[in-house]
Amino acid sequence: MKTLIKNVTILTMIDDDQPITGDILIEGDKIKQLGTQMTDQVDEVIQGEGMIAMPGLINAHQHTPMSLLKGFSDDLKLMDWLEKKMLPAEARMTPEDIYWGAKLSMAEMIKSGTTAFADMYIHMNEIASAVQEVGMRASLTRGLVFLQDDGGRRLTEALELVERWNGKAEGRISTMLGPHAPYTCPPEALREIVSIAEELNLPIHIHLAETKEEVTKIQEKYNQTPTEYLYNEGLFERLHVLLAHSVHLNRRDIRFLKGMRGGVAHNPVSNSKLGCGITPVFEMINQGITVGLGTDGAGSATTIDMFEEIKAATWLQKLDYGNPTVLPAGQVLRMATKGSAKLLNIDHEVGTLEVGKRADIILIDMNKPHLQPIHNVESLLAYSVNGADVNTTIVNGKVLMKNRKLITIDEDELLKQVTVRAKRIVEGI
Amino acid sequence: MKTLIKNVTILTMIDDDQPITGDILIEGDKIKQLGTQMTDQVDEVIQGEGMIAMPGLINAHQHTPMSLLKGFSDDLKLMDWLEKKMLPAEARMTPEDIYWGAKLSMAEMIKSGTTAFADMYIHMNEIASAVQEVGMRASLTRGLVFLQDDGGRRLTEALELVERWNGKAEGRISTMLGPHAPYTCPPEALREIVSIAEELNLPIHIHLAETKEEVTKIQEKYNQTPTEYLYNEGLFERLHVLLAHSVHLNRRDIRFLKGMRGGVAHNPVSNSKLGCGITPVFEMINQGITVGLGTDGAGSATTIDMFEEIKAATWLQKLDYGNPTVLPAGQVLRMATKGSAKLLNIDHEVGTLEVGKRADIILIDMNKPHLQPIHNVESLLAYSVNGADVNTTIVNGKVLMKNRKLITIDEDELLKQVTVRAKRIVEGI
Repeated sequence: MKTLIKNVTILTMIDDDQPITGDILIEGDKIKQLGTQMTDQVDEVIQGEGMIAMPGLINAHQHTPMSLLKGFSDDLKLMDWLEKKMLPAEARMTPEDIYWGAKLSMAEMIKSGTTAFADMYIHMNEIASAVQEVGMRASLTRGLVFLQDDGGRRLTEALELVERWNGKAEGRISTMLGPHAPYTCPPEALREIVSIAEELNLPIHIHLAETKEEVTKIQEKYNQTPTEYLYNEGLFERLHVLLAHSVHLNRRDIRFLKGMRGGVAHNPVSNSKLGCGITPVFEMINQGITVGLGTDGAGSATTIDMFEEIKAATWLQKLDYGNPTVLPAGQVLRMATKGSAKLLNIDHEVGTLEVGKRADIILIDMNKPHLQPIHNVESLLAYSVNGADVNTTIVNGKVLMKNRKLITIDEDELLKQVTVRAKRIVEGI
Repeated sequence: MKTLIKNVTILTMIDDDQPITGDILIEGDKIKQLGTQMTDQVDEVIQGEGMIAMPGLINAHQHTPMSLLKGFSDDLKLMDWLEKKMLPAEARMTPEDIYWGAKLSMAEMIKSGTTAFADMYIHMNEIASAVQEVGMRASLTRGLVFLQDDGGRRLTEALELVERWNGKAEGRISTMLGPHAPYTCPPEALREIVSIAEELNLPIHIHLAETKEEVTKIQEKYNQTPTEYLYNEGLFERLHVLLAHSVHLNRRDIRFLKGMRGGVAHNPVSNSKLGCGITPVFEMINQGITVGLGTDGAGSATTIDMFEEIKAATWLQKLDYGNPTVLPAGQVLRMATKGSAKLLNIDHEVGTLEVGKRADIILIDMNKPHLQPIHNVESLLAYSVNGADVNTTIVNGKVLMKNRKLITIDEDELLKQVTVRAKRIVEGI
């Protein structure tokens, strides 16, 4: 299968590359040629005039099935949100609900230009099946909470996920191990997971320091900060680690992360909406730590449009430093593409548009009043584009959305399913 | 002319009104009936199923022609932004450029659900003509900068605007007097404007305390804060005043505003993007001060989608207080509608959906993956909807956009015009 995108403005996201205009040739799942005018015989031609081609956005921290609960518990205190709303609702979710919730998130993501995501949840087999079917790229993780003894059930499920799905779906699915967070994983649990991860050569996906309360709790329990706790348990020695949130890190904490493999998934919308705080993104980047972007689950963020995270990320750093030059457009766009790709440990495959890389590409339709005139493409992408401006989404060389129509998901059926299921799940809560 | 919107979910924005489902009958420029099922003979029927009808959003602080400069000077220091980019570019704008720039902003606003706006700029005659033609509602103000003597030219233009346009365009245009800001208006100038405003019964539109630097400057010059300076010059005694920005207000400053007519136009996107700071919105609301929302000009905010301001406003207050219950969805939606209406001094006409009020209504298409399932309409509107979800925009009973197609603006011609003009304006800057 060969696809040719004609006359498109290409933003590769490589280093300081500026936009060029030309064609993109996709062969199979890869980018075959880039930038020049091509006249190859192909199976499909996409007219790219007036559009921008850029690497698909990568959502580095998600809980996809929570899209069933979007808007269900906004504007509540964190503990009310969790204990009175989220936990009771989640307890009622069947594996089929998980499947449909994940698919709903995928529909939203494809329609707003996201091509890959890192997910941590339960019933991961259902999510993996949805990923396989829908055609997105994903890093899947079974969340591991070691507060109560479960006879090893969760860890078994985590390892089954790895065995069954790692590298599957034409290589679109990868897996990680997911110790949930410092406050839900005591030292012996963490050590066990670290040792398995090292043995199986698996990355780790973990929440870190999302709230002030977590810092206080861990400090009281272990006389360390959460970051220090993970550092001392050896997480940053050899493993590739994806740290979600990482809001409450002091300068000393940031030093523990220097030289780490992986990096931090920044979730500015969720962190703002829950009143958690502003992550020291600029400081971490200055220390050479990779920072990518994620939405967190729709249960907290409500929107999972990555263009909202792009805006929020740069706004918050500029505010925090009282300086509009901090985190400029080009840099925050690279966080959402190559930055997140590195966190998912797939930057050798995606995150930039390069010959030989997998064809995960989005086309953005600029022929709209809010995107004209074009003085600076990166500025408009970072500060004005929203998910609805994405016209076409391609993953692994396959078109998943064209002219805003989903190809691999029946949207009507999806909306019917989630409406009925969501109503049942929250009834009486 | 009678228009009937059938089977729509109606959010009136009156007090704590919850959504109801029914019909809306528009007769001429007014809402004639609301909520019940109607079978009237009408000229046009709009099917509202799956849509939400709410009052049009009101952008309480704009510089519409700056949309020609969107993305032209992002990520720069405030003074570089102003002196090296904005001022030289603005100096090259012809009256025709102003007309097309204003029209571009109006196209963006209509397409993202804004039905009315407050504008402060120059060449207001061109902007008023565009408003008349396009069909939006606007409060127009000629900015008055008294740094150099101009022989009274600016003030004359300001008064000509009032005389020529106040109450015109079927009552859609109103006018204010616009002393630009404390740092550009010395006491004698302010006093003259206050006295004219009182005489002509005109409201005032003024920038206040946008930056820390302004506070320092005014403090050094007058030994007062900017807010205190305006208070002492009598602005808050009898006049209706629209205060833009008002970021750097301390508790004492807020007390000066207590009981004022008018209120504050909060511009969270621009204030964040320029690194200005977080406005004490929650504190002002607690003191009974009306707070509305605005975008500021596209030259600084880039986006003028009011749904971005809605999100940013609530995110920032929650962050600032470390509390997710601050500024909940319903409240921030009311800021963008009835709050802004009060600032424009048109709350007796628009800002809520009520029988007898002018029909400024937007319909939002909820039949999309990111807006389903619907647990809470207000949550989805505040946290997930963006401008592209607006399907229909009605102002003064007239449909300005239907199924996302602009009715009163030729979009192709507009985009051609602004592309050529913008290129000429910034050439060599």
